[in-house]
Amino acid sequence: MTIEPIAYYRGQISGKFALPRQSSLAPSLKGRIVFEKQYSMPEAFRGLDGFERLWLIWGFSENEGHWSPTVRPPRLGGNERVGLWASRSPFRPNPLGISAVTIEKIGDGVIYVSGADLMDGTPVYDVKPYVAYCDAFPSSRSGFAASAPEPKLRVDFEVSVDDKLRETLSQVLSLDPRPAYHGGSDGRVYGMVFDNLDVRFAVRDDLLTVTELKPRT
Amino acid sequence: MTIEPIAYYRGQISGKFALPRQSSLAPSLKGRIVFEKQYSMPEAFRGLDGFERLWLIWGFSENEGHWSPTVRPPRLGGNERVGLWASRSPFRPNPLGISAVTIEKIGDGVIYVSGADLMDGTPVYDVKPYVAYCDAFPSSRSGFAASAPEPKLRVDFEVSVDDKLRETLSQVLSLDPRPAYHGGSDGRVYGMVFDNLDVRFAVRDDLLTVTELKPRT
Repeated sequence: MTIEPIAYYRGQISGKFALPRQSSLAPSLKGRIVFEKQYSMPEAFRGLDGFERLWLIWGFSENEGHWSPTVRPPRLGGNERVGLWASRSPFRPNPLGISAVTIEKIGDGVIYVSGADLMDGTPVYDVKPYVAYCDAFPSSRSGFAASAPEPKLRVDFEVSVDDKLRETLSQVLSLDPRPAYHGGSDGRVYGMVFDNLDVRFAVRDDLLTVTELKPRT
Repeated sequence: MTIEPIAYYRGQISGKFALPRQSSLAPSLKGRIVFEKQYSMPEAFRGLDGFERLWLIWGFSENEGHWSPTVRPPRLGGNERVGLWASRSPFRPNPLGISAVTIEKIGDGVIYVSGADLMDGTPVYDVKPYVAYCDAFPSSRSGFAASAPEPKLRVDFEVSVDDKLRETLSQVLSLDPRPAYHGGSDGRVYGMVFDNLDVRFAVRDDLLTVTELKPRT
């Protein structure tokens, strides 16, 4: 079957670095589902305002079907192997992801959402309303992902920052964006792009300090 | 993007007639996810036994991308129109469905499940473990599908039937498999195939009576 994007996700994080690994881990992260013109007629969104959440079926656009029968989930420290079918790894024969996001607002051919774990520019193949009676099983036994990962770092700011940005960046950075093999490299300065900002930070022990925030030129 | 089935669903209902419209409406319905040979190595399933439920991403194989901006959900009686993006209608630009099913047993290249809303023979494009912390939002406002549909009919059997079959058929038939426009045709005899059985039943008021159950020849 050939599938084509019905929309693209526009968000605050452009690459994999610092991207939350599941939806809802950084609930303040904002984004937009921007529909392709042929799918954006107002009547196609009628009734969606009755729903609080939305499923996105999207493409791991950087992994075109490269896969292996076992994977090493970051959740298990990156060492232990589990089967591909027991994981949400992006490396799958059909590189599709599903994410439940919160609907913030419905605009003209655009759904504003929060809490997504998608990179800016990600192709979206379908959206569906989240229906609690058939989608929500809060006590469902969930193996090695039995609970949400705890924030790993405290986040402090050496620079002035408004409350909203502080909240969102704190959520994102507290998950520890550093590659696992950098765990010991305390003091190194890391950089990332967030929205139109260059962000720099350093980590000492369990404290991450944002040292610079400046508009991209 | 081109996607290929990784597996096929083998279940007890072969067509759309009497098929539950969402997963978990008929929790006793049994089925199997039979993986294609190249995806069925034992190590690919390692760790899946820690999970209670599984997401299936599957194809509405009878609707190849036929869609309309609005649809009439059976849930609203088939008269009221809502937007396609506010519905789980099978008629979508990319005809993909998602269903959370219960894992019963893991076999050799096969996952035994229950509660699925898939037809026998449905192509499955991906499976993922159900992870409660990012998938389960039990109080999420769910518009016109705020609660599971109530069973519409009582189900009685004129013929002998074992307990397990009685339970499963009762769940399926209580949802009222009749097309909406047959609502008034009380007394008419309907037939369906369930597993390897020919099933006949009639409806009077809110009572559905199974009148015949015999092995297919």
